[in-house]
Amino acid sequence: MLNLYDKLREIPLFQGLTSDNLMQIIGQTKFSFKKFGKNDIIKKEGEKCDNVAILLSGDVKTIAYADDHGYSIEEYIKAPYIIQLEHFMGLSPHYTRTFTSIGESNTVEIGQSDLMHISDEFIIFRINLLNIVSAIAQKAESKLWRPMPADTRSRIVFFLKSHCLYPTGAKVLRIKMTRLAQELGISRLNVSEALNAMQAKGLLHFSRGIISVPQIERLR
Amino acid sequence: MLNLYDKLREIPLFQGLTSDNLMQIIGQTKFSFKKFGKNDIIKKEGEKCDNVAILLSGDVKTIAYADDHGYSIEEYIKAPYIIQLEHFMGLSPHYTRTFTSIGESNTVEIGQSDLMHISDEFIIFRINLLNIVSAIAQKAESKLWRPMPADTRSRIVFFLKSHCLYPTGAKVLRIKMTRLAQELGISRLNVSEALNAMQAKGLLHFSRGIISVPQIERLR
Repeated sequence: MLNLYDKLREIPLFQGLTSDNLMQIIGQTKFSFKKFGKNDIIKKEGEKCDNVAILLSGDVKTIAYADDHGYSIEEYIKAPYIIQLEHFMGLSPHYTRTFTSIGESNTVEIGQSDLMHISDEFIIFRINLLNIVSAIAQKAESKLWRPMPADTRSRIVFFLKSHCLYPTGAKVLRIKMTRLAQELGISRLNVSEALNAMQAKGLLHFSRGIISVPQIERLR
Repeated sequence: MLNLYDKLREIPLFQGLTSDNLMQIIGQTKFSFKKFGKNDIIKKEGEKCDNVAILLSGDVKTIAYADDHGYSIEEYIKAPYIIQLEHFMGLSPHYTRTFTSIGESNTVEIGQSDLMHISDEFIIFRINLLNIVSAIAQKAESKLWRPMPADTRSRIVFFLKSHCLYPTGAKVLRIKMTRLAQELGISRLNVSEALNAMQAKGLLHFSRGIISVPQIERLR
């Protein structure tokens, strides 16, 4: 319970609620706290998403896979963070990413009925919930309509950025050169040349199917 | 008001509500009815989305544009249909598509405060709302992780399908051959050969930057 009040205040889902509202929510909601150690899996791709899990403290690695698991992109997330809120309902209530604790981290989970109860009582919470899920839908849809750039380097950057949750920070793309070439419709040789040029500039590091980008915001 | 009760029953947003619930909603909600004639614009790309518009009757053409308006995809929608429910809230409450009435059609709009009021009173409505928006988010996200096929023909089909609201029906893609080649990373010549082969099989028709597909479900 330590600092739960302060933690909740930082989370978009609870923004706009008064101190009294928050105290009332804390008093009447069953919060399940979980502690994770280094490399513990917090949520796994495919696992059922039947409650809302919020990362309260710690750093987390998130990996998303292509449908055929032919490539993956790893990113890093800091608390506070709501884990895949858009997968709590809808067609298929399952996580589509794996979240792993880097060091020590803590989560709190709110069950379906408690969540419905909070959204019953507090219109602001309900609006936040809809706003966040709508924003996720809008962001994902908008990615499909971005023009594909012409040159190889920009295509690689486009591929990376369109698959990221966040536009900044470190990313690790695990992909075979031939697969990346196929995804982008460029020759394997061109991909390799462009990656080499970016590596020479210190923008990324690549070897054996692993492309590490220390700061994706430096790629344009 | 004619048949509003029956119409609402067909709409996913109102599913699961009892007859009494629906009658109560009809009684206490301000519904704004609008009538459209041939080629009238119902909602325009960029227009503010400050209420929920439901197509009650008629057939509608919807067009979505690439960010730079370098291509567009036209699809057809039948009533009943909720128009871009995921754009009512979130980051940017604006329509991202244009909806045009093909013949005569009718819509009903529900304002923000009425919508909030219905979602206050009926938990089922609130769950439907969240379910629909979550499903839209999940669908859009999942499109990003589909493997890009290797051959030219499959890449063209992939491009078409990933930009469609519906996996079936007639679609019109307006795009220059060079742009389609750039989007897919294939040569203009290969694009043209693949389109010719598909046209010869009666799967589509193309001329002057317009690719018409009578039934996209026939493209595999």
